[in-house]
Order: sequence, then structure tokens, then C-alpha cells
Amino acid sequence: MTNPTACIVVIGNEVLSGRTQDANIRFLAQNLGDIGIPVREVRIIPDVAATIVNTINEVRAAFDHVFTTGGIGPTHDDITSECIAQAFGVPWEPQPVVWARMEAHYAAGQFNAARQRMATMPRGAVLIDNGASIAPGFSIGNVHVMAGVPAIMRAMFEMLAPTLQRGAPVVSRSVHAVNVREGDIAEGLTEIQNRYPLLDIGSYPYFRDNGPGVAIVAKGTDANSAEAAIAEVTTMFSSQGLQPVAGEPK
Amino acid sequence: MTNPTACIVVIGNEVLSGRTQDANIRFLAQNLGDIGIPVREVRIIPDVAATIVNTINEVRAAFDHVFTTGGIGPTHDDITSECIAQAFGVPWEPQPVVWARMEAHYAAGQFNAARQRMATMPRGAVLIDNGASIAPGFSIGNVHVMAGVPAIMRAMFEMLAPTLQRGAPVVSRSVHAVNVREGDIAEGLTEIQNRYPLLDIGSYPYFRDNGPGVAIVAKGTDANSAEAAIAEVTTMFSSQGLQPVAGEPK
Repeated sequence: MTNPTACIVVIGNEVLSGRTQDANIRFLAQNLGDIGIPVREVRIIPDVAATIVNTINEVRAAFDHVFTTGGIGPTHDDITSECIAQAFGVPWEPQPVVWARMEAHYAAGQFNAARQRMATMPRGAVLIDNGASIAPGFSIGNVHVMAGVPAIMRAMFEMLAPTLQRGAPVVSRSVHAVNVREGDIAEGLTEIQNRYPLLDIGSYPYFRDNGPGVAIVAKGTDANSAEAAIAEVTTMFSSQGLQPVAGEPK
Repeated sequence: MTNPTACIVVIGNEVLSGRTQDANIRFLAQNLGDIGIPVREVRIIPDVAATIVNTINEVRAAFDHVFTTGGIGPTHDDITSECIAQAFGVPWEPQPVVWARMEAHYAAGQFNAARQRMATMPRGAVLIDNGASIAPGFSIGNVHVMAGVPAIMRAMFEMLAPTLQRGAPVVSRSVHAVNVREGDIAEGLTEIQNRYPLLDIGSYPYFRDNGPGVAIVAKGTDANSAEAAIAEVTTMFSSQGLQPVAGEPK
């Protein structure tokens, strides 16, 4: 059984300009891996309608799930929702449940045209309610549309995740050592990777006061294989006179 | 005159799995904006040859510059360089300058097959030398291939940047206020955006102990326009009884 796949689409000029450090990709990647829906690609795109529509249509055909963050607020640069409707070829129209809820929530005159846009959704959208915002995200087909503000995105993801069909969780085992450089262990590591073709074995250099080191991480859906591969790496480290330490460097 | 455009391609399973928080996108986005080569799209892709080749060929046709990070080390998962050769349809072969330099650098026996891969490049590659690593990055056509380790990537970018044809620098002006929500100012902001079609005006909510606030950022290549637009936003804030503060929130 192969795992379902995910693509993340981050929508927002503020990440592309470098104003904002993205804080959603890593959270989603870790949490989707934990429920067996590994992220296979990320796109960061601007608040440009044609780009959003074309990107969504490309990635929703290529991956089992698409998770978008950003662009569902009330301001002029929040155009994700209407672009999703356009991508799916469905009307973008008042969502009666959200409309009624927001109308009741705001004081007279405060449920203005800008906020009404947050109650307007693609026809057929399934709400992603959450405790952080009166305005929900939504799913349509295999596309899940969430806020860009990290606290709100996380609240939405927590409601969404239990509704998704899980795959086998991706597990990770690792070992590291100092006073070694990647070039010293690359050939032995290639041989180990070749013996475990279903694992993804990664090599990550790091730099600490006690010298340059390398962390080796084995990921896959079979914990026994990951442990066996890391045991082989540990043996290789020892045979080269290194002092391997289980896990990732602190 | 329109500015040249950039796409960043981050290559590495470690970012897609959530193991590693990317630290290169924001640096490149800010520094490329400063030299007038704004980033229009980012892709984060795995260490999979077909994905790398197809992505590179797609984005090098769509953008003026492509900047890649990651996958140029000595281990089995470092396949960026050979994939770039494949994308350009040129041989991947020993680069004599780099080969000689690395051979002289390492002790006898240490310039092994793994390290020799770092001295192997697409035919026609132009070196990106740097003070952080004996192994350089390289440019071929409009694709600039850099390391994933942030300190090495930055050293490479510093050597590369002066060789690029600059566009008009993207400048930014901003104002913020607390005790306001985006829905309160969205309609006035739309009118201001419509009066400055060449600017990109963004609205970014933030949360501090003294209440929810909104920062408005105007970006563009004309500083006078950006200042005029932010002056209008400041007037709008004041007219709603808010206390606008110049710049971004601390």
C-alpha cells in the first residue's frame, strides 16, 4: 500500500518578499507525516489570481491532497477563496451557515462588505470550523483551504486532520557524530541506502563548537527497517573511529 | 522597465519532511528584492531526479533567474548537479579547475569518489567561488546552483549577486496600529490600493499584549508612491480614531 501524498501551497506576497518567515510549512510537514500523508512538494505563490488558479489545478491533479495557507481574510489581497471557486469551475456565493453565524457575531453595521467576503465560498465547500476564528476554512474536493495566521491555521488543521484517510505513519530514526565530514562517510552510506531501497536515508552536516558533525536520518513507514539501517550506520561510524550518538544533535 | 523575476527552488527531503526549518528562502527573497530581482515563486521539491529535472526546465523557461539551494554535497542524496546537466542536455563531467583545487586541498586518499562528485559539473558551468567551502556552486544559463547549508549559501550568494543585472530596487513603506481588525479597514484600503495600481499593498494582522493590530505594507519600485500610499493609510487610521505608528510593529 502506498501512502497518500500531499502538496502545500502557501499563498502570499509577504512570504515571497521576505517580509514574513513562513511558520506553516514545517508544522504541516511534520503533522502530515505523522498521519501518513507525506508532503511531496511545496509551492509559495503570490496573490495573483491566474497564478493561484493555474497552480491549484496543476497540483490537485498531481497529489492526493492539497493544503493551502493564506489569502482568506477580508482585505483586497485575500483572493484565495474566489480563485479556488474559479479553479473548480463552480460559483463563488454566500455560504448560508457562515453568513448567518458571522451576521449574528458582529455588532450592527460591522458585518460589512469586506467581512461578507469571508462568508462567501465555492459552492460545495465543506467547512473547517475551529476555535480560533469565527470564519472557517473549507475543503472542496481534495483541496483544503486554511488561514495563513499560524495559530488559526493550526486550529483549522486540528479539526481537519481526523477527517482525512490516514496512511502508514512515516517514522524516523537517526544517529550523529562529531569530527566527521560527509565526504568521509558518503561511500559507506551509499551502500547502506542501496540495501534499504524503501527508506529515505538523509545526511545532514551540522556545525557545533566541538567540531563539524553529520547527522544521518532514516525515514520510512517500516520502523524495523529504519532501526536496522541506523544500526548499520552506527557500526560504520564506530569502525571509522568515530563516537556515534543515537538521535539528532541537540 | 519591468524588473527581472526570480524563482527559488529548494531541493531536499529534509525540508519537505519537516525535519529542517528552511532558512534560505527569506534571506534570498530579501536580498534579491534589494537588487531589483523580486522572487515570484518558490518550489520545495524532493531529492528525486525526474522531479528536479522537470521542475528546473519548467521554471527556467518561466522566470528570468532560478536560484537553487541544496543537493550539491558528496552523499547519495546530493543529485542536484547531475540533474541540472540532464535538464540542460549537456554532459556531467569533471570540472578541471575545481578538480585540481580539491585534489590539492585534501590529504592523499581523501579526495575520494564521493568528493570527486563535487568536482563534477554540467559542461559550461560558471563557478560560484566563495570563502566558506572548497567546493563552489555554479551558474549555467539562468540557473544558479548553491549549497543548502545557510552559511555556505550566503557566501555563494554574496559572490554571485554582483554579477547579476539589477532591476529597480523594491522599496517598502509601512504603518501599523493596534485595537483594529482587518475587517474594519479593508474597504478603505481597497480604495487606496486602487489609486496605486503599481504598488503591492499588503495587510498583515498581528497579535500583541496590547491588543490585535494590523500592519499595512506598501511595496514597489517608486518610493514616492509608497510613501504617498502609506500617508493615505495613516490618515484613514486617524479618521477611524486609531493611533497609527510608522513602520512595522516591533
